[in-house]
Amino acid sequence: MSQVTIFEMGLRDGLQNESRSVRLEDRLSLAQNLLKSGIRELELGAFVREDKVPQMAGTSELFQKIGKPAKNTRFWALVPNLKGFERAVQSNVQSIAVFTAATESFAQRNIGMSIADSYAVFKEVIQEAKRRKITVRGYLSTAFGCPFEGPVSAKQALKGVDQLMKLGVFQVSIGDTIGMGTPKMVEQVVKPALKKYGAKKIALHFHDTRGMAAANALRSFDLGARVFDTSVGGLGGCPFAPGATGNLATEDLVFMLEGMGVKTGIDLDFLARSSLSFQRKINRGLTSRYLTAYASQQKTRIANDSH
Amino acid sequence: MSQVTIFEMGLRDGLQNESRSVRLEDRLSLAQNLLKSGIRELELGAFVREDKVPQMAGTSELFQKIGKPAKNTRFWALVPNLKGFERAVQSNVQSIAVFTAATESFAQRNIGMSIADSYAVFKEVIQEAKRRKITVRGYLSTAFGCPFEGPVSAKQALKGVDQLMKLGVFQVSIGDTIGMGTPKMVEQVVKPALKKYGAKKIALHFHDTRGMAAANALRSFDLGARVFDTSVGGLGGCPFAPGATGNLATEDLVFMLEGMGVKTGIDLDFLARSSLSFQRKINRGLTSRYLTAYASQQKTRIANDSH
Repeated sequence: MSQVTIFEMGLRDGLQNESRSVRLEDRLSLAQNLLKSGIRELELGAFVREDKVPQMAGTSELFQKIGKPAKNTRFWALVPNLKGFERAVQSNVQSIAVFTAATESFAQRNIGMSIADSYAVFKEVIQEAKRRKITVRGYLSTAFGCPFEGPVSAKQALKGVDQLMKLGVFQVSIGDTIGMGTPKMVEQVVKPALKKYGAKKIALHFHDTRGMAAANALRSFDLGARVFDTSVGGLGGCPFAPGATGNLATEDLVFMLEGMGVKTGIDLDFLARSSLSFQRKINRGLTSRYLTAYASQQKTRIANDSH
Repeated sequence: MSQVTIFEMGLRDGLQNESRSVRLEDRLSLAQNLLKSGIRELELGAFVREDKVPQMAGTSELFQKIGKPAKNTRFWALVPNLKGFERAVQSNVQSIAVFTAATESFAQRNIGMSIADSYAVFKEVIQEAKRRKITVRGYLSTAFGCPFEGPVSAKQALKGVDQLMKLGVFQVSIGDTIGMGTPKMVEQVVKPALKKYGAKKIALHFHDTRGMAAANALRSFDLGARVFDTSVGGLGGCPFAPGATGNLATEDLVFMLEGMGVKTGIDLDFLARSSLSFQRKINRGLTSRYLTAYASQQKTRIANDSH
């Protein structure tokens, strides 16, 4: 059994931050490879406005093509409001995620609502979801820092966690949206959150914008966290710092945890090969450092073999 | 007072792994900026064969031009053998570093000697150095993994530390040359090493080849380590995985530690501006993730200001 759950975000949080859209068939084959590598929690896309987020167009089709998840596997979709929820229902999605922020300015600019209004919207979505036995996950953005308001206090982040929990989500993913957290800040949020809600209800979602994602994941793991959001190959980026790094790369976290004797259920070698094949399709270098080293060694091996 | 000592390696371990040589005047101005940013332990270059390592040519001139270090500051040079030592002495170098490996294959390929032979050579160098009141630091390469032999046991790494200590070096820098270490492996080496020798005699030298450098530094810091080798901007790379990341970036470690309330004595903003200025001179993107985010924000700020 896995000791840590990897929540794979590449197809949603990753791709929505890529400047170019990826073809549906390539998203599908990436999803299938992620499942083969051992991923059991897979966010496939978002039911958002396709004119605003063209990278997420075709999410419905993707759900249709990939079919029903196997036992112990869940396919997730991000849903911003009741309209998105209805589209998710039409696509037979069984697991949805809602998202808000720890800071007002970010909520306003990112979802066009105040935090309070977002809770009012989610309340309705969650009620409908419960009626249909759909699982709901909650994302809390800017839990450690906000591009508009700067550093965020642990108190403010924990307030956001409490509010999402009260709405009835099954798990809150605490997000360092712009990678401003350091291990000490992480400790101040993760320790009380785990104490209050337990390891199954708290996920950590780190971005590597300033190189802290693996260190922050390590500190969280030390404190007892067992669910982490990652993005395959480090797909994506930071909309508030163009060119900077995005989500913690799945490969880097799996390498760290497995190297510590922690079971993730992921076949790292298969995952890396799948990422390299996807990288060729999107025609840009992925940022996972493990993957870059892996690719370089593959090249060396091929060069040596051909001598 | 600084709680952690940053041992800056960019001008040596960084530049020697860059494919192109950097002009002496640019190395000098980088060194001067590093001092201004608060760096107190600065490795300036290496007295190695200039035909084999052209990036280190002019080290003698660099020492001459930069002059004597201020109080509480040391300028270091890497010295592979007695001949290199003599060149260092001629350049009035007061602090030298010798290096060997934890694995035989790496020692053979990297320094062209067995580990035992390297100790015989260093014994002579260190005796001469002591006579001249020159401080000697020791590097132990491949302490967590070797490109030829794979993973290295803690026992083997600790044996290397003991052997270097016996020779009389003032400090051993334990190196994860190809970035194979994970926090658990690090703990198995760092814990006993600190217990036996204390925090002043043990330095950690992490490479970010697989994205673990900050996490490994965090684990070491947790265990009591207080000296870390870093490279400004993440200068350098990995000769065994072309294209992969090199040393832990100074900016990333300073961001992490200062964010945890740990004093490094480094002015991170000044350091980042200096790195960006150096980046323009070498005409390639540096790999520090903090620096990349910093550069992106600077651009955004300039774009906003010009509106």
